[in-house]
Amino acid sequence: MATPTATSRPTPEHIFNTLSAYQESAALKTAIDLDLFTAIADGANTSVLLAAKTGAAERGLRILCDYLSIHGFLSKAAGHYSLSQESAVFLNRRSPAYMGTLADFLASERSKTQFNALAETVRKGGTAVAQGDNTKPNDELWVNFARTMAPLTTVSAGFIADLAGAKEGKPCKVLDIAAGHGMFGITIAKQNPNALITAADWAPVLAVAKENAAAAGVADRVSFRPGSAFEADLGEGYDIVLLTNIFHHFDMATCERLMRRVHGALKPDGKAITLEFVPNEDRITPPMAAAFSLVMLAATDSGDAYTFSQYEKMFENAGFAKTTQYSVPDSPQQLLLSEK
Amino acid sequence: MATPTATSRPTPEHIFNTLSAYQESAALKTAIDLDLFTAIADGANTSVLLAAKTGAAERGLRILCDYLSIHGFLSKAAGHYSLSQESAVFLNRRSPAYMGTLADFLASERSKTQFNALAETVRKGGTAVAQGDNTKPNDELWVNFARTMAPLTTVSAGFIADLAGAKEGKPCKVLDIAAGHGMFGITIAKQNPNALITAADWAPVLAVAKENAAAAGVADRVSFRPGSAFEADLGEGYDIVLLTNIFHHFDMATCERLMRRVHGALKPDGKAITLEFVPNEDRITPPMAAAFSLVMLAATDSGDAYTFSQYEKMFENAGFAKTTQYSVPDSPQQLLLSEK
Repeated sequence: MATPTATSRPTPEHIFNTLSAYQESAALKTAIDLDLFTAIADGANTSVLLAAKTGAAERGLRILCDYLSIHGFLSKAAGHYSLSQESAVFLNRRSPAYMGTLADFLASERSKTQFNALAETVRKGGTAVAQGDNTKPNDELWVNFARTMAPLTTVSAGFIADLAGAKEGKPCKVLDIAAGHGMFGITIAKQNPNALITAADWAPVLAVAKENAAAAGVADRVSFRPGSAFEADLGEGYDIVLLTNIFHHFDMATCERLMRRVHGALKPDGKAITLEFVPNEDRITPPMAAAFSLVMLAATDSGDAYTFSQYEKMFENAGFAKTTQYSVPDSPQQLLLSEK
Repeated sequence: MATPTATSRPTPEHIFNTLSAYQESAALKTAIDLDLFTAIADGANTSVLLAAKTGAAERGLRILCDYLSIHGFLSKAAGHYSLSQESAVFLNRRSPAYMGTLADFLASERSKTQFNALAETVRKGGTAVAQGDNTKPNDELWVNFARTMAPLTTVSAGFIADLAGAKEGKPCKVLDIAAGHGMFGITIAKQNPNALITAADWAPVLAVAKENAAAAGVADRVSFRPGSAFEADLGEGYDIVLLTNIFHHFDMATCERLMRRVHGALKPDGKAITLEFVPNEDRITPPMAAAFSLVMLAATDSGDAYTFSQYEKMFENAGFAKTTQYSVPDSPQQLLLSEK
């Protein structure tokens, strides 16, 4: 927020706003929980109309909508609220790109509890309150992830499908490790009628991927390998192995161990595709990728956001000849293409 | 944070960052709790040196310091951290303007609990979890406020002392209502050796003001009137009555009731000085003043950030002839000078 003063002396405004930033998370999550953005899109564009529509108090709605206007999620003119472009695309439940479900993962009680214990976590060097070893199952967490975070994949899943040459339509065997909602493999299957997808994850999580495959009309070309990515039989002869948002959970030795299994599962000319938060070597840029390291500190024993040189080294140790980095447009993530 | 992409299509980045903003509060509070800024100022400017100094894990410190660098509280160059100008002034415990104590009020468990219940609060139209009637005592809360938030008053207390003509040195009787830490009255007393201050607040809170008056060397000119601002005998014949950050706790009728008591306590040519978050009539600018309304929604039954026209009306109803607004430099707050 802008400083409402004209001098250049330092003010504590940034400190004040940062210590209060949890209020922004709460306000946006509350608006999503009350489905305010959809209500406004549907025409309830004053606090009085919103109160009539939602049954919540006019005073509460007025103050919340003003706050959302201050933070750019709404616009306000003459007491009438309207959606920002971003809110219209992503927070109106009737939008095909709706992603209000993200609130239930990003601002979950579980995550807030982890960050409430951050001082203890920093002292310890790993999560002080969560199950920090993600080589072990954690069904409640990952089923919630699969049910809430799928909308965030649209852009990167499209980019991966392009990189995998899905539209060329050649026969292609794809292994999707830690598939979760399954949307990365499913997107390839939708674009390439000759692609066969194998989704690997814990069994309760794969139930979500199965639903999504059916909804996408590709259920006949998606099969499942339940269990640990470190222990289950993953199959072999794959053209492509997808590793989306998995390495950041582990220490480097564990990442290498997984990548060696991937190497063994690929055809001789197969490719591994990694989607990750990859900070620059300074580890503080770009901001979203670099900041993700703190989420892994809070949530895991030894996960991290690794740099490209760290991935290059790990993948080389696992047997891959060459890894190339691509920026995913409209996303804070990077894509790493590894050749056997 | 900047968008790391080159297109102008809407991205969910602002939504993602806002839902994650509680992490920023946690990171800054953790750094303050671990006194990292002081340690870095003292020369422990790498994660290894910080680990040796604080006993916390190097991994935890490295990730936390990187995160603080991303958010502008530190700078990082070649693995060495240094304080931003703001951190050096406000977060190094050896700085006279240190205000790390703010974290214990702004990001307290109490406040976070209030915001965790925001959906329920919006439905109800007033706090769902706190004691929402601040005409009643709440010693733990207000003693904590008095002990932690005093550093934030320096700038505005100086501005008020100037407006009260403290440096002219004329005999002057000042009543400081809801004095808390007492720093507004104490600042006048320090500048004007002929000022006599009466601090009114709940008795346990006044104990903090008493300590501060003694530390400032003005204890002989500060007296105390413990009890409710709505019921206690406030005295009379005051030249100035200070009302700093009190009206926002109440509904308008209660504010008027208090201001009528103030009117009765002032000399015929006396002045009331109100320090407040005063949003513009649009109620969404300036951002910090306008956003404060949500804090009052979360924390009280019926408090608010009132606009100037609302204050003008309340104060007129209470008998004041004229109220003038001043912007407080280097502060998000406004000052209202009311003439009897």
